[in-house]
Amino acid sequence: MSIAEVHEFAKAIIMEAGERIRSSFSEKWVIETKADANDLVTNIDRETELFFIEKIKTFDSTHKILGEEGMGEKIDSIDGVVWIIDPIDGTMNFIRQHRNFAITIGVYINGIGKLGYIYDVMRDQLYYAKQGQGAYMNEVPLKPLQAISLNKAIIGLNATWVTPNKRIEHEPMIDLVHKVRGTRSYGSAALEIVSVACGRMDAYISLRLSPWDIAGGVVIANEVGAIASNLKNEPINLLKQDTFIVANPTIHSEIIDDYIQLKNENK
Amino acid sequence: MSIAEVHEFAKAIIMEAGERIRSSFSEKWVIETKADANDLVTNIDRETELFFIEKIKTFDSTHKILGEEGMGEKIDSIDGVVWIIDPIDGTMNFIRQHRNFAITIGVYINGIGKLGYIYDVMRDQLYYAKQGQGAYMNEVPLKPLQAISLNKAIIGLNATWVTPNKRIEHEPMIDLVHKVRGTRSYGSAALEIVSVACGRMDAYISLRLSPWDIAGGVVIANEVGAIASNLKNEPINLLKQDTFIVANPTIHSEIIDDYIQLKNENK
Repeated sequence: MSIAEVHEFAKAIIMEAGERIRSSFSEKWVIETKADANDLVTNIDRETELFFIEKIKTFDSTHKILGEEGMGEKIDSIDGVVWIIDPIDGTMNFIRQHRNFAITIGVYINGIGKLGYIYDVMRDQLYYAKQGQGAYMNEVPLKPLQAISLNKAIIGLNATWVTPNKRIEHEPMIDLVHKVRGTRSYGSAALEIVSVACGRMDAYISLRLSPWDIAGGVVIANEVGAIASNLKNEPINLLKQDTFIVANPTIHSEIIDDYIQLKNENK
Repeated sequence: MSIAEVHEFAKAIIMEAGERIRSSFSEKWVIETKADANDLVTNIDRETELFFIEKIKTFDSTHKILGEEGMGEKIDSIDGVVWIIDPIDGTMNFIRQHRNFAITIGVYINGIGKLGYIYDVMRDQLYYAKQGQGAYMNEVPLKPLQAISLNKAIIGLNATWVTPNKRIEHEPMIDLVHKVRGTRSYGSAALEIVSVACGRMDAYISLRLSPWDIAGGVVIANEVGAIASNLKNEPINLLKQDTFIVANPTIHSEIIDDYIQLKNENK
């Protein structure tokens, strides 16, 4: 089976899932609370993940699936073909706003990101990339990122990280906020990563993301020249939760070197 | 001339201006810098304001116009019919993102907000309200806001205000960020106000807004039961720059009383 065939299949099931989600807004749905009160999960989250699992297993039963809702297998290596899926990234936005959430999927082969997808469901905009073949929004090529200086940059950042917290020293983050031209916070890691890939923002920083939040976005970001890493400037590890930054290449190291001081548990 | 006629006229020119803006993205445009580096202005900003002024003056030459770009009259009272216009709210988003900006207009008669408009140009979504007759998005009625507790609230807030600054004590703002469920920052006051009006967020706070940023949004917010004021809980003054909050009525006073401590120049 070729990557091109997997790509056509992935696009088709993502668009179908998006259509199902849009139509679900007219139905009643139940909101549950997981351990963390921020970590809201809906029936639709799980139903969408199950939809993907069933489709993918029918497509090729040897493909492995790592999903946010944990309905795929337990995975302890990323050998072979692995689909890394977040059926709804930005669940709070999904629940409260009925917008500003995304389906995001990365397809990795032996740990290499081959295909990446972020579908902004309510805008009906599908971002995708094939490794080495560029990135697209609704089939229009994304442009390579242009150089930018930090004092002209817009960065995506949750306000939490400029307040005292257990993960990162907040004082240098305050300096960063004062240095840049502006900050944004959208409440969906996938949509924030793709904003960097499109040059709408110049960096996005998070202290706690899971593989499914970033797997698709990293493939897209790479294709336009953005750099994704953890906040120690190490490569992305798809088997664990970690810190995260994706940035325009002209400011990626500057942000990490001058403004990021991780606390113990993130060191 | 009836309010209904003014409304039909206002809707028509806003939609026409939006169409002009969308088509302008294919043209070259020049970016200038006003006194504040954040306060970017484009040719399109000014052309759009001029478009509104010409249309309105032809419609009724007695109407007064207060616009961000200062191409209307100097206005020292809000007697009579006053159009308060921001041709592009969220200029940095306009320039960098080509999305997440809005046209916003308020029509006031003797200081009373009669008509309010926020047009999310790229989503093609027109929010409007007529005083006492409800608010709408693309002709679908907005629902009255439901009660919410602060610990479940999403608030719109620029990260700057949780860092040391000259306008507000940032320590209580840190407490606020820790108290609420989440924060967002979109970079357009108009779109943040309308997010509160739609129940997508529960409050939006800014330390420095001008009449044209809020005039349209306040009319819309009022119609769904949101409360807008300055951060001293005083009524909106449409003749000067001021602090601003719009919030769900169940948390408006709680935020001001428990978390807002203005510094000298804002007292």
